[in-house]
Order: sequence, then structure tokens, then C-alpha cells
Amino acid sequence: MSLLIKNGEIVTAGGRYFADIYCEDEQITAIGKDLDFDADEVIDATGKFVFPGFIDPHVHIYLPFMGTFSKDDYASASRAALVGGTTTLIEMCCPSRAEEPLEALQLWNSKAEGLSACDYTFHMGVTRFDELAESQLRTIVADYGITSFKVFLAYKGAFGIDDAELYATLKLAKELDVVVTAHCENADLVAQTQAALVAEGKVGPEWHEPSRPVTVEAEGCHHFMTFAEMTGAEVYVVHTSCQPAVEAIVAARGRGVKATIETVIPYLVLDSSYTERPDFEGAKYVMSPPIRAKEHQDFLWKKLADGTIDTVGTDHAPFDFSTQKHMGHPDPNKAVNADFSPRGEAADFTLIPNGVPSVEDRVNLLYTYGVTTGKIDLQTFVATASTNAAKRFGLFPRKGDISVGADADLVIYDPAYTGIISAETHLMNTDYSGFEGMEIKGRPACVTVRGQIAAKEGQFTGTLGRGKLLKR
Amino acid sequence: MSLLIKNGEIVTAGGRYFADIYCEDEQITAIGKDLDFDADEVIDATGKFVFPGFIDPHVHIYLPFMGTFSKDDYASASRAALVGGTTTLIEMCCPSRAEEPLEALQLWNSKAEGLSACDYTFHMGVTRFDELAESQLRTIVADYGITSFKVFLAYKGAFGIDDAELYATLKLAKELDVVVTAHCENADLVAQTQAALVAEGKVGPEWHEPSRPVTVEAEGCHHFMTFAEMTGAEVYVVHTSCQPAVEAIVAARGRGVKATIETVIPYLVLDSSYTERPDFEGAKYVMSPPIRAKEHQDFLWKKLADGTIDTVGTDHAPFDFSTQKHMGHPDPNKAVNADFSPRGEAADFTLIPNGVPSVEDRVNLLYTYGVTTGKIDLQTFVATASTNAAKRFGLFPRKGDISVGADADLVIYDPAYTGIISAETHLMNTDYSGFEGMEIKGRPACVTVRGQIAAKEGQFTGTLGRGKLLKR
Amino acid sequence: MSLLIKNGEIVTAGGRYFADIYCEDEQITAIGKDLDFDADEVIDATGKFVFPGFIDPHVHIYLPFMGTFSKDDYASASRAALVGGTTTLIEMCCPSRAEEPLEALQLWNSKAEGLSACDYTFHMGVTRFDELAESQLRTIVADYGITSFKVFLAYKGAFGIDDAELYATLKLAKELDVVVTAHCENADLVAQTQAALVAEGKVGPEWHEPSRPVTVEAEGCHHFMTFAEMTGAEVYVVHTSCQPAVEAIVAARGRGVKATIETVIPYLVLDSSYTERPDFEGAKYVMSPPIRAKEHQDFLWKKLADGTIDTVGTDHAPFDFSTQKHMGHPDPNKAVNADFSPRGEAADFTLIPNGVPSVEDRVNLLYTYGVTTGKIDLQTFVATASTNAAKRFGLFPRKGDISVGADADLVIYDPAYTGIISAETHLMNTDYSGFEGMEIKGRPACVTVRGQIAAKEGQFTGTLGRGKLLKR
Amino acid sequence: MSLLIKNGEIVTAGGRYFADIYCEDEQITAIGKDLDFDADEVIDATGKFVFPGFIDPHVHIYLPFMGTFSKDDYASASRAALVGGTTTLIEMCCPSRAEEPLEALQLWNSKAEGLSACDYTFHMGVTRFDELAESQLRTIVADYGITSFKVFLAYKGAFGIDDAELYATLKLAKELDVVVTAHCENADLVAQTQAALVAEGKVGPEWHEPSRPVTVEAEGCHHFMTFAEMTGAEVYVVHTSCQPAVEAIVAARGRGVKATIETVIPYLVLDSSYTERPDFEGAKYVMSPPIRAKEHQDFLWKKLADGTIDTVGTDHAPFDFSTQKHMGHPDPNKAVNADFSPRGEAADFTLIPNGVPSVEDRVNLLYTYGVTTGKIDLQTFVATASTNAAKRFGLFPRKGDISVGADADLVIYDPAYTGIISAETHLMNTDYSGFEGMEIKGRPACVTVRGQIAAKEGQFTGTLGRGKLLKR
Repeated sequence: MSLLIKNGEIVTAGGRYFADIYCEDEQITAIGKDLDFDADEVIDATGKFVFPGFIDPHVHIYLPFMGTFSKDDYASASRAALVGGTTTLIEMCCPSRAEEPLEALQLWNSKAEGLSACDYTFHMGVTRFDELAESQLRTIVADYGITSFKVFLAYKGAFGIDDAELYATLKLAKELDVVVTAHCENADLVAQTQAALVAEGKVGPEWHEPSRPVTVEAEGCHHFMTFAEMTGAEVYVVHTSCQPAVEAIVAARGRGVKATIETVIPYLVLDSSYTERPDFEGAKYVMSPPIRAKEHQDFLWKKLADGTIDTVGTDHAPFDFSTQKHMGHPDPNKAVNADFSPRGEAADFTLIPNGVPSVEDRVNLLYTYGVTTGKIDLQTFVATASTNAAKRFGLFPRKGDISVGADADLVIYDPAYTGIISAETHLMNTDYSGFEGMEIKGRPACVTVRGQIAAKEGQFTGTLGRGKLLKR
Repeated sequence: MSLLIKNGEIVTAGGRYFADIYCEDEQITAIGKDLDFDADEVIDATGKFVFPGFIDPHVHIYLPFMGTFSKDDYASASRAALVGGTTTLIEMCCPSRAEEPLEALQLWNSKAEGLSACDYTFHMGVTRFDELAESQLRTIVADYGITSFKVFLAYKGAFGIDDAELYATLKLAKELDVVVTAHCENADLVAQTQAALVAEGKVGPEWHEPSRPVTVEAEGCHHFMTFAEMTGAEVYVVHTSCQPAVEAIVAARGRGVKATIETVIPYLVLDSSYTERPDFEGAKYVMSPPIRAKEHQDFLWKKLADGTIDTVGTDHAPFDFSTQKHMGHPDPNKAVNADFSPRGEAADFTLIPNGVPSVEDRVNLLYTYGVTTGKIDLQTFVATASTNAAKRFGLFPRKGDISVGADADLVIYDPAYTGIISAETHLMNTDYSGFEGMEIKGRPACVTVRGQIAAKEGQFTGTLGRGKLLKR
Repeated sequence: MSLLIKNGEIVTAGGRYFADIYCEDEQITAIGKDLDFDADEVIDATGKFVFPGFIDPHVHIYLPFMGTFSKDDYASASRAALVGGTTTLIEMCCPSRAEEPLEALQLWNSKAEGLSACDYTFHMGVTRFDELAESQLRTIVADYGITSFKVFLAYKGAFGIDDAELYATLKLAKELDVVVTAHCENADLVAQTQAALVAEGKVGPEWHEPSRPVTVEAEGCHHFMTFAEMTGAEVYVVHTSCQPAVEAIVAARGRGVKATIETVIPYLVLDSSYTERPDFEGAKYVMSPPIRAKEHQDFLWKKLADGTIDTVGTDHAPFDFSTQKHMGHPDPNKAVNADFSPRGEAADFTLIPNGVPSVEDRVNLLYTYGVTTGKIDLQTFVATASTNAAKRFGLFPRKGDISVGADADLVIYDPAYTGIISAETHLMNTDYSGFEGMEIKGRPACVTVRGQIAAKEGQFTGTLGRGKLLKR
Repeated sequence: MSLLIKNGEIVTAGGRYFADIYCEDEQITAIGKDLDFDADEVIDATGKFVFPGFIDPHVHIYLPFMGTFSKDDYASASRAALVGGTTTLIEMCCPSRAEEPLEALQLWNSKAEGLSACDYTFHMGVTRFDELAESQLRTIVADYGITSFKVFLAYKGAFGIDDAELYATLKLAKELDVVVTAHCENADLVAQTQAALVAEGKVGPEWHEPSRPVTVEAEGCHHFMTFAEMTGAEVYVVHTSCQPAVEAIVAARGRGVKATIETVIPYLVLDSSYTERPDFEGAKYVMSPPIRAKEHQDFLWKKLADGTIDTVGTDHAPFDFSTQKHMGHPDPNKAVNADFSPRGEAADFTLIPNGVPSVEDRVNLLYTYGVTTGKIDLQTFVATASTNAAKRFGLFPRKGDISVGADADLVIYDPAYTGIISAETHLMNTDYSGFEGMEIKGRPACVTVRGQIAAKEGQFTGTLGRGKLLKR
């Protein structure tokens, strides 16, 4: 099957120019002026940008959590992703400490295989480190092409590992040339501060941010950077939310640490005032690290623009508001859905499942609030939402670029489109949107996965199950 | 005329992949797998890299100086550039304070037009700022497409301007959207320190570096950054040689100053110990800012690798050793060429014409001592020696990239070549090489200028006079 | 003559304790528990602090400026100083470039000698540097014991010196072991920015601060620090007003520069909003560097508290509001004193004589707004308002401490006093107070100059002409 | 009993001057010129300095460790301290996690009470934090006047506490206005690195420093600073050895953390090359954090001089070389004392008891290598070896100053003395000196404890058991 995209303006992390793109056998095989090749399908991209397919380096789809499960599966998530321009997902595989890594990966993979409409891979969560785990991690890297780990400095007792395990994980990663991604917050400082706030009766969602302030995240980053420095491992800090955290990582780069910085889209368009919304609405915006004060949002945009921050992901973690988020409602009588309030009066913000569903909206929000406002240019947009993640995680140039030989994952983007984000229309399987009512300027007119058209003008047109595990 | 380059590995600032390149009417018109287009000329690039033509953003060719002239003209310089892989030159047009800017530009341009074998443009030196100068600068920008100025904070009385002129220049640049490049050293500190050293009898070339230490350069950078901050102009610091200078600029970026950092190839492969060579050999390595101690060289490589330094130029300024450099020989009896020592006993290092000829060697040295040693990767090599300069100076994507629609300036590079640099074989018109005897690993096998093959395996095969002034 | 001070709490930069002080022949000769020495005069200091006499390291008394003169002479100024607890004045001797240094010093000294009621010395202004000036500066240091110079980086053409002169001044200072104090603002940036604002019709006093923003002061500091670094001279930055300036100096300390930081009392209790007061009241607060936004005031207190800022002076420069400050009134019809508006419509903020009279209020303001609020402790209060200046300028331990052998300059301070600052009651010879209506908590109950009681409860009781030039 | 010290030059942290000192009832009661008071004892201090008694804020005397005990008791330690000019000891009370805090303090105190010849107090080690510990800590603060805690971030499992305990300890300290001192090294990084080195056969004392590099100490400091920031507690970092550690603390000060920095005398006169000495001599210099490379020594002197580092202690921990240090000898056959090598071949540097005995030498070494070389001035000497510790730990002005009302703890110091340090002559109860053969210039001629002469010219003349626990 062949596809010819005519007259578009090609935009990559490196540049922009007008040319036609010819795809055959799932790959881009030629880029040229006025290509008059025969093709099974021809798309006229006049007046549109042609971007490489976008990559979300940080999503949760299958996520058991506090006795419940996140709401998306690979059907809903990959459809939402594709409609929004994301053609590759990297999911966190997060076993509990009790599970064996290999089984966990197989379980996580089984949720994607045969169901996902887009390509995917995993960061392998290292939530314990012992002889068995080490052996299985070696297998996972060798046999499944999983070349990134994930560790949690937060969530002690659940996913979190101790310093000795952290050291061992980084040493193994160094040996295997695997990059280690990390959630960096000091677990004990969070726990102590949470306990103190709850004891003072500060139980609403607006207390989530003060329970894990920027200092706690900066400490996590500094700690992780020191371990990276001592082991020589390459590292990647997920969902960096604030200035002190970025600065701790930048300082480590100055000492020779190879560290990549990710932020996520909620930090770029929301701020901590959202958690103060009445009627428990604030719970919709509870995630960790928390969405920060506006000044940090401004800082993150600047650091995106100057190349300090490398990638923009989502930390997509889809929980319903009316039931799941309400697990943390402090007063059951005021609950939107009074049927559900398992812990009654005793509940508090620490019981709100963390996460803001956003896999569908990331690209459009970054374009609208970054590119059209002039905060970032088109190259930075493509680099941070696609190319840099591809490079960091061993997917480049197969993914993340428009060049001959690359997978024909392409986004023909319509900058003239305007619309409104709403839970009523989104494809994610959650009952609310954290971006409800926000305007977007620009949307994918057409999205291809390895040469096949998978989305058109907000409609999914692809094939569930066509997505493949990307061996790296 | 058409050209087809087959089977090469295309390397740009953004990525690398295997594909064929087809060029027609001086431009790249298609990139693809196994292109079977007819072509007037076909080059087999198997086993070779295909880079975009390299850009030297900082050369002097016509340079009256201390009663003498630099040795190259556009014939020798463009031949040397092309053989070395550089397909675009940006020359400093440096009038004295007495000259009118427009006449000066016409003079400088007349030296290139009809003679250069490669394309070129100029940074317009602003060596005075008054009503006449302002008016002519407006003409130069509008009519000649010269969108960059050059100012000297050093060389007071010769090229240097005072702070009021600097402010006015930056204001004008801001208005016209012109980038201002600057030589940043505090002129008075240099003059005072030189006088003190000479008074102490410290007259040899090894005293050149201590006469303008890193602190003096950092002060110049900090000063320039403040003026940039106050005016909002975009700036570019040429030939940054040391850690404190880079740090001053990086700090200004943090305050919002849009500043680009250039270093030059001599700083990356030589160090200050070279100026201590006996028999006045040290004079060969006298340039300003001076070549620094080894630790600064190491620092510059790191900052190239991490993207802090944007471009690598040469500050090519070709003076003969036996005559011109000897103007600063403190003892005529010991002179290599005893006939020439115009100022006899009274001479000292301040009379040595500044400069290390290097337009021919930049690309090969950067590849050999940067890429093959692992200090920088291929993308950084292309970015800093070509793409970033093209972007900064309004030449992109016409120059600096391999993409459809770009000028067909291409370097088919042979990584298997090994050779030795020597004045005996170089094409630059100087009687010495600052890199004499250094090994190079890699060399252009073939270089094209707008689709025409201009150099092959160290031989110039192009057309003098075919080069054009690039309106930006 | 002998004096015994009983039962006070002695507070020095180093500590605090209860003891009696016995003074004889102008000096402190004993400190002890329950001293029962005979004394000509006995003061009961029960319930009061006993501080060493305070030192104002930065005043102007005789100051020809823009065709007028500042309003104080040594009679009014020394009376005001003493009533306010200041027992030593260091005046800026500021000749114009046309004057000879030695004559200037003699002129300045003649204004103090035989008139001042308190001891004094001078910072010798170096407003030109040539052979004559150098020779006379050597005489001034040797014969008058003047061991500090003053240079202006601002006020180009008036007091300002160029970089070559600055270098030479610092070299001479290094040789003579003299500290160089400096007013650090980049003169050209100020001039250019002033011109731009006035051209835009921004002529009121509220535009004074934007005409010389913090960046301009930081540039001056960085510049001065570099010259200090290159020459090895010890330096002292006067009236530091803002965070970037302090940071530039702190960074230089890290590179080994011996730099002392002074701030002045207006920066600590006023902020830039005062210059926005209606009816040209803003002119009262025009001084240079300007009084900054509140955040800088907060920063300065913190840096006082942690020892980064060494001294608190005044930059006392007394000009009347109704006449002198009105020279810069942009609209003569609205002038408070319509008779005086020499330049009519064309006037603007650049014509407002700079200065806020404060020699009388410094100590009480620093105590009230620093000590009683808990921003600084008593030791820091004494150190920054007295001891550190004494040490830096060669007056310690003769001045600045309460120890056996020191001059008996003592301030018996009543922390229970409360009052209001007002031009109606102050002893300074100006028709307004910049601190009008501000409350003070604490006042000198008694002030001694070398054992003689010179002020009591706000009344001057000393002897005009008793003050001596302090040879250092 | 009364004592009169005549004609000395009094030197305090604040200044210096000539005066007589009269002491009565254990206190200083008068300071004056030519005091002609009657006194039971008169000392002529002509040609000598009179310093306040020095304070060692960090010693171990009773120290069970790895099945053995440190060698000094309060008799030998207080004698050695006094002969060396130290008149107050602050000992670390270090219970194991199994012991109860109150019993531990009583045990530690019982070792001092009735035996010490000088005054003393304790830092209360918090090596566990639970309800019982909290309750007893409150008692210890209230009843024993112990207003400082000590925590270990290193020594996991022995003294070290976890992050939750650290948080609780700091919260309690904040509530009780107690300062928390801390040993800051990341325990896990040390353990992992030690294991790796030993596994590679790197077992000699020269591997001690690489097993806990500066990065590990800086991480500990950064971690502790974050906890201080989150709790608001005042903190004190003991034995800071290197630049990155100091910088981490300085950065925290900038964020508002109240942090005091201690270094210890071995870091100032020794460097890491000492641990490379042959015949296991290197073991003499094993302490933690390790003695660093020379560049850090240079840095520490600079930061002492500029006031960044507040105090100089010893971390006095006296173990014999021939037996105790030999527990870590890797080869019993080569052992100096072959009888003692309990773990034979398997031993390594991790089994060497940590510590360099130095309570006797601190003052003389700091004077000789700091003051006489010009690295620090006399005021800094007194401040860092006495006054600052007194202020920080609630002993000022009773201790740490020469002022009326202070305890008559005085050191009449002879700057003309020269001598050599040797284990053969020292009073500490160890069989070696870490400073063997080093020259000292200056020594206490006479030392008083509360008005009684306790040491003279290197001889102890005091009274064992006269020392008191200082309630703060």
C-alpha cells in the first residue's frame, strides 16, 4: 500500500520546508518537490503542517490503584491518542513490590497486544531489586527491547524503592545501557507533611500541593542526581513541575550527569489555583508532583523554549471524578455522587487518586498555548512532543522524524481549526476533562500509523490491534 | 543540470539515515530510497556521510591591518574553504572609523564578487555610529540583505566603539531585527595590562595571553550582555575562548537575553602552551581573545556537546609568519627572516598581527578531534559547524540543511581518509599552518556548490566567480 | 575630665553585658562591675543600652551641584548627626575634574575644621587621574591620613573617570594600601535611557528609577569588580540598592576580590512608590542609585542580617524641596514655589538634585525598623552602623567599639522613647524630611564625643569646632 | 579568690587592645588601663595575647565502638584540652539505638562529673525517635540544659536514623528551640561504594576517601538542609570537609535555612595523601568524612577567612594505632603489631576505627597554620575556635568572650614559643599523633578556668573534677 501527501509544509525538530512525501510499505520512501509517483491514496495537505507522529513518553493505561483501576484500556486510550495526534505511547509498567517483574511486563503487554491502534512500548518499573528481579530485568531488556526503567522515590511501601535498591538499579542500568526514569519526591517529607496537614484539619484538595511543596521535589531530584553521578547511569526525570527541581537537574548536568528533563502538559496550562475550586472540583486537578503556582508554569515555558526541558508528556492517569476522585472527598454528604464515599468523614485529599487525563489533548494544548502564543516555536514543539523522546528512548529515527526510512507516522495538522475541549466529546474514558472549556487552535486533520490513516478530523479511522510493541 | 547522490548516509543536525539525493537547478528536489531518476551526474556515496555544506560564520579575507594586508583573497580563501568542506563564508566587513559604512561594504563586496567560488555574505562592522552611519546602515540592511552587525568592544581607537555608540547600534539593530555580533574584551584593561607587561620586559608572544586574561573577556561579555538586556537586541558573541566568558553569557540568557555563543577551532585543538614555543614560533598562535590554558579547551568541548555553545567558526585571519608575524619580534637579530623587523629592538608581542589561518582545516579538525574522539556526536558536529549559523544568520533552510528545496551545497565526507595537515599542501595563502603536523581522520571526498562539484579529494574543481552574495 | 557611666547594658558588635564605663582624658580607661571611681560627671544608664558612637561612612556636606549648593554646613550637619547618635562623619570630597585634588581637600577640610562638633575624615574623590593628581594623592594619603578614595563610574563628564583612569587609581590604591570606594552605575546606559524617557515625555520624578534600573547598577558593580580583580586593590561599593548589585559583588568575593558592601538608610525604609507621590512630592525621594521596589528592600534587610552587607550609611545630600528639588519640576505653573523653575517647561527629572537628607535619622530608623522588628539583632545593628565602617576605614578600635583605650564616643540609648520624625523638629538644614511622619522607637538619651556630652534627649549640648580630622 | 592579668593584649572576636583584666569569684569583673586592684594572684602578660578560653564543639571522649572503647577519659582529655588552650568541651553523647536517651546521658555525664578539669556539656545524640525517646529528650533539654541534638545521616543501623525520625527530631527541636547538629553523608552510597571497592580488592586505608567522596557528603548536606527548610529548625553541620558540602549549605542559607558550618582541624592541616602512607600508617588518618584532597583544604581556609565557615572543632576520637586502628589491617603478617588482627586476611579499611586525636592540638595548629601564615586574622581565629561556638550553643557571653561578667576562662598565649608536636610528649592517651613532627609557633603560657590557673607552659596545673556541666 502506498500513500502520497502533497503540498504540505513539512515541519521537523530541525526545520521546515514545502515538499511531498511518499510512503510505501509503512515507511517514508521519498520526499521531494512535485513527486508524481503513483499512490494508492493521495492526501492534499495544502495549507497544513506535516509533523512527525507525536510520542507520549509517560502514560498510565492499565493502573491498579487503591483497590480500583484507571478507566482507560488500550482501545480507548489509543483511539484518544491518535485523534489527538499521538502515534506512539510509552506506558509505565508499575508492578507492586510483591509481583515479579517479568510476569508484570507480560501482564501489562497483554493489555496492549492485539488491542492498541498505535505502537507502544514500556518503561519497566523497578519496584524492588533482588536477585530474581535483576535476572528478570536482564531478560526484559534483552528479549522485549525495553531499554528504560522507572523508579519511584516517592510512594514508599507501594512502588518506592530504598536507596540501596536505587543504587543497584542504576548500576544495572549503566551496565545494560538502559536509561532510568524517575519520579522524584522525597517520600518521607511528603508523608510527614500530609500527616501534619490532615491533623490540622486541612483535608481538602487544595492542601495537596502544600503537602508536597517544591522543596520536596527538588530534594528528590538532587538525591536522584547524586545517585546518577555516583553510578554513571543515564537518567530521565519524569513530570518535573517547578523551578527548583529543574535547577537541581541543571546543576547536575554541570557536574557531568546525563539527565533528561520531562514536564507534562497539565503543568503548562493549569496552575495550583484550580485545586481550590468549590464543590470538590479541585480533586480533578490532583496529581503528583502537584500542579504549581503560576510562576512555575511561566518558568517551565521558558525552559521549554530554551531547550533546558527536553520532553512534554502527560502522566495520563484516567480516573473518574464522580466515583474514583470522590474517594478522597472529606464530607460524604456533599459528595456529587453520595453513593460513593467509602471512608466517610475520615476521608481527605490523600485518598484522591492522582492524575489528570490528557493523552488526547497534549498536542493540541501545546500547540495552542505554546506555538500560537509565541512561547515556543514550531521546531521546539516537534522536538519536545516527539523527537526528543524518540531519541532518548531508542526510537529515533524510526519514530520522531520525517525522513526517508522512517515509519510513516505522520500528522497533517490544520492550524485553522478552532474548537473547545470537553468531556462530552473526548474519546478518553473519563467522566470529566481537566481542560473543560479551554479553547484550542489547531487540530490533526489526518493522522497516519505506518502509512495507514488512523484518524481524520477528530474521528478515529484506524484499526484496533494494529499497534505493535516497539523493540528498541 | 542535475545531480544524483546515491547510497550515502545523510547526516543533518536533526538525524541520520540512508537515502539518495536528487538535485536539479541548484537545489535539492528529492530525497528517497533507491531513486532511479535520470541525472547528468551521479555520485556513489557508499560508505560515506553526506553533510549539508558547512558555514564559516567568522572569517577575515580582505583585512588591512597595521600597514599590511592579510594574505588571502577570495580566490585562495574560497578554494581553501571548499576543499575543506566549507561552502558558505560570512566575512567581517571592518571599516576603520574614518571610512563610510556603505563605501566600505561596497569595497569589501568588490573583493568577493566575481572571484569567490563559494557563496558569501558579510557581518557589517559598525565602527562608528553617527547620523551618516545610521542612514547607511539602514541602506545596507535593506539593499544588501545584510542582517548582522559586528561591533568591537576591544581595539579602542581602531575599530572599537564607545558605550553610547554601542547602545545606539543595538537600538537600531533591535528596530531592524538585525543580530549584533561582538568581540568582547575590555579594551582599557587590555591596554593597561599590555603596557605593564611590556614595561617589565615581558615582550615575547607567550605574554600575549596574560595581557588579556579570561577575566577581561568575561567583563566584555558581561558588559555586552547588559547592553543587550537594556535594548532588547539579539546578540552573538564571537570567538568565546574560556569558561568565565561562557558563564557570563549563560547567566544573561537566564535573564532573558537572546545570545548566541560562537567559539573557534583554534581554541578547540590548541592551548596557550603553543605560544611558548621557541624561535618566535609562538607568534603563529597569537590571536585575540588568546588561545587559553587546556582546562578551557576541555570546558569548550563540553559546552559544545551539551548545546550551550552554538557555533564553531575560525576567525580566519591569514598573516605570514616570516614577515608579518615577525613585526612583533622583540629581537631582530634572532628573527627567522632578519630582513623584516621594522621596529627593531622596540618591538613586542603587541605588534604581532593577530590570527591563525584555519578556514581550510576547521571541518576536518572538528570532525577528527570532536567526532572521532567521542567528544561530540555527528548531529552536534553538523549543527555547530553549519546549521546553527545558518539559522542565526537568516540562511536557513536555504543553507545548513539537507532538505527538499535547500541549495544543493553538499559535502560527501570520507571517514576513512587519514592525512596530515601541512602548510606545504594547504591552499590557504600563508607560509605556515597553526596545525602543522596534526593528523586528520576524515576529509571531504566531494563538495558541491548549488549542484556543481567544486572540490574532490583535496583538489579544487569549482569555478572562481560563481559564488554569490547571499541576501538574507 | 572624667566621666562614669553606670548600670547600662553595653552592646558592641561582639556582645552585650552589664557593666560600668569609666572615661578619662577622652578615652575609655576601665569597664567593670560596680566601678566606684571618682568622676567629674556620672550618668545613670539604668534601663538603657550603651553603644559605641555611630559612624556615617557616606555623607555630603559641602556639595556644589548644578549651580547650587547643598544646604548643610558642618555646624548644622554635625549637630544633627550627634543628636541622632552619629559621632563620626566620613565626607565625600568631590572636586570637579578641573580642580586640583590637594586644593580641593584643603577646601573641603576648611569647611569642617573649627566648625564641626564631631570628628570627621574624608574619602578623597578621584575625579581625574594624571601626573599632578597622582602626586597630590600621594601627599593626601601621607600627610592627611586619608586612606580611602572615591570614584564615580556614573556622572560621566562631571565626576566620572574613564576606564584608564580607574585602572590607574586602583593601581595607586593597591600600592598605597588605600581602599577605593565607588559609585557603580554605567554612565552611558543611564544617559541613553534618560534621553529616551524624556523624549517620550516621561519627565516626572517617578521616571528617575526606570532611567537607571537595577541592571545598570549591577553592570557598574561587575565592571568595578573586574578592575579590582585585575589590580588587586581593596574596594568598597557605596549605596548598593538592589539584589543584582549585591550578587555581582558577592560573586567577585568568590573570585578573591576584597569588596565591602554599603547600603544606605533610605533604601531600607523607603521604596520606589514614594517617587510616585503627587504634587511633585516624588522629587524628595530622588537619589542615585534610585530607591528600588519593595522586594529589593526586603532583600537588603536579609543581606544585612546575614552579614553580606557590611555597612549602613546615608549618602546624606541635603537639598531643599521648595527651591532646589524644584529645579526638576516639569511644569512651572504647578510648582510649589512658582518663583523658582529656572528651566520652565523644559525641565524634567534629570534636573532634580539627587539626595535624601538623613544623617540625623539613620541610627533611629535602623534601630526602629531593623532591631525592634526583629530583622536584625543588636550586634548587627552596631556592626553595620559603626564597627564595620571603623574597621574598613582604619578607625578601629579608636572608633566603633567599647573597649579600654577607645575614644569615649558613646551613645546611651533609650529604647523606651517613641517619637515622630518631622522636618519641623529636625536639626538638618532642609525644608523637608524624606521620613516625615514615620514613627521611631528609641533615641539617644545622651551622646558623648571623646568624653564630653554632646547631645541629650534630642538637644545638642556639644561644642562646635571641637571635632577633629581623624588621621588614619 | 582574685586574679589580675596585667599588660596583655586582649584579643576577642571583635577587636584587640591593651588592658588589664581583674577577675573575682570566677568571673571577669573589670577591664581597664593600669588597674591597681589588689589580687591574690597577678600574672604579667607582657608580650602575650589574652584570648577567651577556647571551646571545642565536637569531641568524643567516652565512645564504645566496634567492641572497643576510645582511649581517653575525662581526666586525660580535659588535661590535654587545657594544656592546649581549650577550656570548654562539648561532647557527643552517642547512645546505640537500643539504649534509652536519658540513661545514656546520665551514663555519659557520669564519665565527666567529678573527673573533668574543665567545663563541659553535651550534644544529645538522637539515634532513634519514638514516644519514649521524645519524652526523655524533653526531660534532657529541660533538666540538663542540653539545647543541642546530634543526628547521623551516615552509620545506618548503628547511630543513623531514618527520614521519618529525622523529620520528627527536627520538629521537636524547632518546638524546644534546640539546634540540631548533624553528620551528613548518605549512608547507602557509602555502603554500596565500600562494598564495590572491597570486592575489587581495594582494601587499604587509601581507599577510605574514595569510598565516601565529596558528592556523598554534599548529598547528605543537601538532604539535611531540605529537612531543616521544611521544619524550620536551626541546624549545624559538623565536620564539613569539602567545597561541594559547604556550597550546599550556603545555597540553603540563601533559601532562609539557619545553618551553621563546622569544620575540624585535621581537614585544615592534613590532606588525603596522608592515607597513602606505607606500612599501614595511612590508617592513622582515617576519619569520616574523610580528609580530602589539598584543594579542599585551601577552600576551607578561604571560607574560614571570609566567615562562611563558623567554627573549627576536632571530632576528637582517640584510638590507638598499634591495636585499635589495626583492626582494619588487610594483612596480619605485615601488621606492626602482629598479635592483633582479629579478622585476619578478610580485614579492610572499613574496620579501621574512625578518628584523629586532636583536642590538645587544635588551637596551636589553627594559630600556627592559620594566623601566622596570614590565612586568617586573629579575630577570625578567636571567633571560629571559641566565640561562635559559644554563641551557637547558648554559652555566650559566659564563655567565648572577654567581657565584664564572663567566666574567667582565659588563655594567655605566647606567640614567641616554637615547638614540635609529638605523641611522646602529648597528654592525650593515644600511642600516636596525626600531627607528629609538625612545628607549632605559639602556645598557651597560662590557661585559667573560672579564675583558677589550670595549665602553664605545657603542664597541667588544674584540679580534676572541678569542671562543671554547663546548663544552657
